[in-house]
Amino acid sequence: MKYYYSYEAFRKDTCSLTKEVQSFEPEAIVGIARGGLTLAHAMAESLNVREVQTLRTELYDVSCKRKSITLFGTCSFKNVQRVLVVDDIADSGETLQAIMLFLQKEFPSVEFTSATLFYKSTSIYKPDFWIHEAKEWIEFFWEADFKI
Amino acid sequence: MKYYYSYEAFRKDTCSLTKEVQSFEPEAIVGIARGGLTLAHAMAESLNVREVQTLRTELYDVSCKRKSITLFGTCSFKNVQRVLVVDDIADSGETLQAIMLFLQKEFPSVEFTSATLFYKSTSIYKPDFWIHEAKEWIEFFWEADFKI
Repeated sequence: MKYYYSYEAFRKDTCSLTKEVQSFEPEAIVGIARGGLTLAHAMAESLNVREVQTLRTELYDVSCKRKSITLFGTCSFKNVQRVLVVDDIADSGETLQAIMLFLQKEFPSVEFTSATLFYKSTSIYKPDFWIHEAKEWIEFFWEADFKI
Repeated sequence: MKYYYSYEAFRKDTCSLTKEVQSFEPEAIVGIARGGLTLAHAMAESLNVREVQTLRTELYDVSCKRKSITLFGTCSFKNVQRVLVVDDIADSGETLQAIMLFLQKEFPSVEFTSATLFYKSTSIYKPDFWIHEAKEWIEFFWEADFKI
């Protein structure tokens, strides 16, 4: 069973998430592509953050037992101390974990905080902020509403 | 007078724009931050393009008569021949023109096509694809719907 996550639900949840994250006062936002892009855009508008960047990962099956994660893109922070990293969902958590480790290693003087709309209790990475625990398969409106 | 551009109008227009762009068969999408990010996400889902990157510009008033445009971020294309560049609106057109020139110069072997939802007849740059001519000031839903 798929649970359809509408724009209206997203609007409400994004406002809640933004309120929670607000005190962190991010100067830049990294949206994880593709799932985190609409959220990154909305939160950037809401928090009046002009600087939005993206990163992307791909998960490859190296063998039956082992998976390898590859990160695409890079970030650049100039005079930035606090960065918010957003994605739609921490599902397996592998993407977010890899990206947070990469960013913290690459930019040791920057403080990173993560936020997602959904979080699965089985995720290996727990975001600093999240709104709902995901118990079903979620079909986000950006996956469903633009079929041509 | 501001014209409120709702999610529902965006959904309809994005489907139309995607249908027009479809035959170009982009392998990557560049979304211009911030305005083009939600559109880039939606079109990437619709066209099944995994690779989404962002660029950002800032316009500075250098003197009363002269403006200087600065580009932030960079792109990286590997085994990619066709890239779609999207933004919400070609208003003055300066951002899109600067970004298209930068990309064409930086990646001479890649073919770039541009698409926006709105286009102003006074823009110095005309996108390859656009849906509406903008005659009023548009307030996009991402600017209006996430106020906290």
